Amino acid sequence: MSVKPFIQSCQERVNLALQQRLPRPEGVAKRLYDAMHYGVLNGGKRLRPALVYATVKALDCPLAVGDDAACAVEMTHCYSLIHDDLPAMDDDDLRRGKPTCHIAFDEATAILAGDALQAQAFEVITNSQNSATNSDNKLRMIAFLSKCSGSLGMIGGQAIDLASVGQALSLSELKQMHTCKTGALINACVTLGALATNRASQAELAALSTFAISIGLAFQIKDDILDVEGDTQTLGKQQGADLDLNKPTYTSLLGLEKAKEEAHRQHQKAIAALDLFDDKADTLRELATYIIERNH
Amino acid sequence: MSVKPFIQSCQERVNLALQQRLPRPEGVAKRLYDAMHYGVLNGGKRLRPALVYATVKALDCPLAVGDDAACAVEMTHCYSLIHDDLPAMDDDDLRRGKPTCHIAFDEATAILAGDALQAQAFEVITNSQNSATNSDNKLRMIAFLSKCSGSLGMIGGQAIDLASVGQALSLSELKQMHTCKTGALINACVTLGALATNRASQAELAALSTFAISIGLAFQIKDDILDVEGDTQTLGKQQGADLDLNKPTYTSLLGLEKAKEEAHRQHQKAIAALDLFDDKADTLRELATYIIERNH
Repeated sequence: MSVKPFIQSCQERVNLALQQRLPRPEGVAKRLYDAMHYGVLNGGKRLRPALVYATVKALDCPLAVGDDAACAVEMTHCYSLIHDDLPAMDDDDLRRGKPTCHIAFDEATAILAGDALQAQAFEVITNSQNSATNSDNKLRMIAFLSKCSGSLGMIGGQAIDLASVGQALSLSELKQMHTCKTGALINACVTLGALATNRASQAELAALSTFAISIGLAFQIKDDILDVEGDTQTLGKQQGADLDLNKPTYTSLLGLEKAKEEAHRQHQKAIAALDLFDDKADTLRELATYIIERNH
Repeated sequence: MSVKPFIQSCQERVNLALQQRLPRPEGVAKRLYDAMHYGVLNGGKRLRPALVYATVKALDCPLAVGDDAACAVEMTHCYSLIHDDLPAMDDDDLRRGKPTCHIAFDEATAILAGDALQAQAFEVITNSQNSATNSDNKLRMIAFLSKCSGSLGMIGGQAIDLASVGQALSLSELKQMHTCKTGALINACVTLGALATNRASQAELAALSTFAISIGLAFQIKDDILDVEGDTQTLGKQQGADLDLNKPTYTSLLGLEKAKEEAHRQHQKAIAALDLFDDKADTLRELATYIIERNH
């Protein structure tokens, strides 16, 4: 697929940018800084940064304009994974085939590393040297990231997720959970990317949000499908893990075929939302397709 | 002491402001919102908000100008307490005589409530309707809060604290730990308060930071003194708790008398730093004295 080299170049680009923005692992708090590096520079696919950069590209700006936004969303994503893996949460020992942060370090350090990464995400935006982004845009980026990552966004979604284990959720409740848990941060990717360029109209910002929310849902439905269909080796995690926990999923609520149809429908909706963009948004379109067609 | 009514009015003021800024405890994520309310509206003394308001007063502005800054620092403080009390951290069951957040709810909810409160602290600043504070000042407030609360500030100090249990720290290392762990957020109180007014000169901002760092150290030394001298009932926590954990303290390093002298010295330094302010800064001066002379 033609978008793969783009994803790979974004991965390299953001890994370098992240490394430059993390505290140097030295001094009395070295263990904390090591844990932050470990939790962030972890071989992740960096789909969220790719969405930031593709948005910057859609608005005809050089990718560097998206560096701080990409780092901020990825730090937020990584902090949430570190906390998500904790014994009191999902209690995962492995992530991408490597020990999770609290296993490689210890629980206290993992909690603090997550906390520090969240603060750093906001700091990265305020410290941005990007000349395209003025103070008002930085503030809008911070407002959007804090809302999307907080109690009405990502964390709210995780709380609903926790509360839903063993519960019968309706399809609309499941959708609400995922729109918060995954969709909100994906929305932050395209919106922060667009705000960083200082070139997006209100209509373009709204279209990007619609795109992101649909992509977020498609992403989650695909996750549920892979959890049923994929094998453990390809996924790097236990196949059927969510099923074992008796968590409500799209496949358990809709069945496999209807879940695939819903993923397709959300994909179409995402593509349609980008109608007001020209072919510079093709990478964004290809990313949406990639998310639906990935097998891990 | 004449500052007590001021502290009490700040307590009432910020409690109301916090309540207005927390998510309404309803809907599918109600348990999370309840935990956030529980962790924030907890009968705390609100010394940090009082420092914000006293700074606003020193700069001759109405207290309302400090509401968002006061809420932001207090939310940050409360999130750090919730995470600090977790079993993997200090493992405390009681705070101010009431069950800690993870006891009253559960560990996962306490982790998420802390995470959500951190995000909300930044959101509160971006959403501020305070007409005295322009975009540039809001950004400076966010930059300062993220730095003071992150890996080079509060969280960095907690990491040093964790690493120091059973270790022999030098006096300068102990000072560094407390300057990060407590001093940084106290610095955020006066600096955010000053930035919110948009009236502080560079010299005044620098003086307030010096004041805050000394007050922060005096506060911590006093804590160590109270831990040796105070009785359990007055403190609301186990007397000698830090001693039991074999944590380095000012009293263990300096002895009780020298620790008292050092607290006095930091107090004098704090007061001297305010020399360029007129009598409108008297409340700030009285707060410094209150912190040294408190017995709980």
